[in-house]
Amino acid sequence: MDYETPLFFHVMGYAADADGDVIDMVSGNPDWEPPRALRTALHEYADLEPDQFQYPPSAGLRELRGEVADRRGVDPSQVVITNGAGEANYLAMARALERNVGDEIVMTDPVYPYYPGKTTMLGGTQRFVETAPDGSLDPADVRDVASEDTAAIIVNTPNNPTGAVYPESTIRALVEIAEDNDALLIADEVYDHFDLSGTFTSALTVDSSNRIVTNAFSKSMAITGFRVGYAIFPPELVENAKSRHMLVNVAGSRPSQYAVAHALRETGPDYYEANRDLLRDRVTTFTSALEAAGAEYTRPDGSFYVMARFSGYPGTLANVERLIDEAGVAGMPGEAFGSARPDWIRFALVTPRVETAANRLATYFE
Amino acid sequence: MDYETPLFFHVMGYAADADGDVIDMVSGNPDWEPPRALRTALHEYADLEPDQFQYPPSAGLRELRGEVADRRGVDPSQVVITNGAGEANYLAMARALERNVGDEIVMTDPVYPYYPGKTTMLGGTQRFVETAPDGSLDPADVRDVASEDTAAIIVNTPNNPTGAVYPESTIRALVEIAEDNDALLIADEVYDHFDLSGTFTSALTVDSSNRIVTNAFSKSMAITGFRVGYAIFPPELVENAKSRHMLVNVAGSRPSQYAVAHALRETGPDYYEANRDLLRDRVTTFTSALEAAGAEYTRPDGSFYVMARFSGYPGTLANVERLIDEAGVAGMPGEAFGSARPDWIRFALVTPRVETAANRLATYFE
Repeated sequence: MDYETPLFFHVMGYAADADGDVIDMVSGNPDWEPPRALRTALHEYADLEPDQFQYPPSAGLRELRGEVADRRGVDPSQVVITNGAGEANYLAMARALERNVGDEIVMTDPVYPYYPGKTTMLGGTQRFVETAPDGSLDPADVRDVASEDTAAIIVNTPNNPTGAVYPESTIRALVEIAEDNDALLIADEVYDHFDLSGTFTSALTVDSSNRIVTNAFSKSMAITGFRVGYAIFPPELVENAKSRHMLVNVAGSRPSQYAVAHALRETGPDYYEANRDLLRDRVTTFTSALEAAGAEYTRPDGSFYVMARFSGYPGTLANVERLIDEAGVAGMPGEAFGSARPDWIRFALVTPRVETAANRLATYFE
Repeated sequence: MDYETPLFFHVMGYAADADGDVIDMVSGNPDWEPPRALRTALHEYADLEPDQFQYPPSAGLRELRGEVADRRGVDPSQVVITNGAGEANYLAMARALERNVGDEIVMTDPVYPYYPGKTTMLGGTQRFVETAPDGSLDPADVRDVASEDTAAIIVNTPNNPTGAVYPESTIRALVEIAEDNDALLIADEVYDHFDLSGTFTSALTVDSSNRIVTNAFSKSMAITGFRVGYAIFPPELVENAKSRHMLVNVAGSRPSQYAVAHALRETGPDYYEANRDLLRDRVTTFTSALEAAGAEYTRPDGSFYVMARFSGYPGTLANVERLIDEAGVAGMPGEAFGSARPDWIRFALVTPRVETAANRLATYFE
């Protein structure tokens, strides 16, 4: 089997091994503090009795599933707590393909690179729909490629890498297209707490037995390494997903789930708002410097990312490595996100040195 | 897809919901203390900087991979740190099947119930080889069913549920059979620290590019809920396994890996020896009571389990549930472990109340 593995780890490794000072804007690892309650809960957990160190229920700690179900307005039985959004998307895509009503996964271009890789690994066929330059997705374009061969349509909103946030009308249309083609809409909403536009609509607001929502606490709590996420399935689809989860992972990590359950309960809206404010400031700082440097760029409505295009400097892997070596700024090559943006480079605003990075880029390209 | 999911969670749930006092001998959850260094490390981790809360390397924290590689005498690049032995076995079996040189997975009967379930989920075909009444496996029987259709032979030693520990000659023969049939031997050695006989031989002692060894810290450190395990692949096979691991889970849980890495380094042989001694005592206590009750039983050479057979009381799910309700002792039905031991019930010696349980059984069946 020929896997397509994301370039993230390669570029991160290159940046880490480079000589000199490199500002890492490659991965989507938040650099801000996790909720205070998360640290407290982890300390508490470390002193619990040995029985609390054993397998949690396969679908997740009861208190965490309950808390997620309450907040999302679904029954706890529809929730599978996963090893991050990575496993949630894997379970959702596998669930779509094993219905045996189509082997195509429709996704956007630019695309989050794990989706095509997972599709291939699961024996599915990749289909792409190009988004507009501003990252918006025209449902008519999705309808054009959808057919009886479609197993699932997978979207990410707020979007990595474009920063687009799909309006409610798009989400409704996508669910309808899934229903009309006996397919599933998979909405990966892992950046929902980083909607900077106030226009985000969860696919959960559209009641349907043809949509799965995936999410994680990786970004919202700044804990990508804890590996706690979830998938919400329609009641008709959840049992096989739970079985696959059990057969692949048995269960997720209990210390992680315990800490997240407490943090979820004890963290108020201020925490999330402060992180959005931080991100808004960074967007302004970074895009102002890009503007001054005469670069093209996207201003994100949500998520952590700015895409930029520098005249005469396409976003190839080779050029990204040169930028690491010569400018001391590490981004992700546009070619990592499909075929639609080969000229662009994606920068993750997850460093306090956003201004320095922008100035380095401005100097390098002036 | 029709999954076969293990009965564990069903029986555990039944026992938990039962009226009255039930001694839980269903699952393999140790009831003893984890290493002290594990608790200390988790406290340390809770106070680290936010960057330590982000994705670990996909194949595992460098210090943990290094520590495992050193101890097992392999190159760190051959080690994938997984979400427990569950994911390690999933990766190993998937790796065998995707070589496309056979679709059969050969396993023993009695069998650890996850193996057939994983086989079906991965699109493979189950083949069984019956073991002797004492749990020993005759390599000649494996050779009889092995063919060009064989993708892998998967064994568990020390064995769950029989308690058998395969001698070196068996391990050597199994590797040879795998080589002769262009198949892989997958040796699941998760109970290696619970070899009560002193005869355990790791498949790593047999150099071959046709064997994968899986393991975890779940049992050895009494932390089934932390989900830290590993698989050791031959260099030729490791890359695709790493890709699958990345595409399914991205990475394992970092707080869990951090705690395990420290505990591994800082825990001496006394810890493991004390747990073996505890288990030896429990085996003696439990089997003496079974002896007194006139039951048949297996005396384990390794792992946590005793299988028992009570005259006129086959180990069906219905009878196991009746035993929970009427005797206050919960075991696992023999029919959960394949077709070879329908009359037997498996009891896990992971409770301080082993003596009480044995007395209850003796009274119930007298």
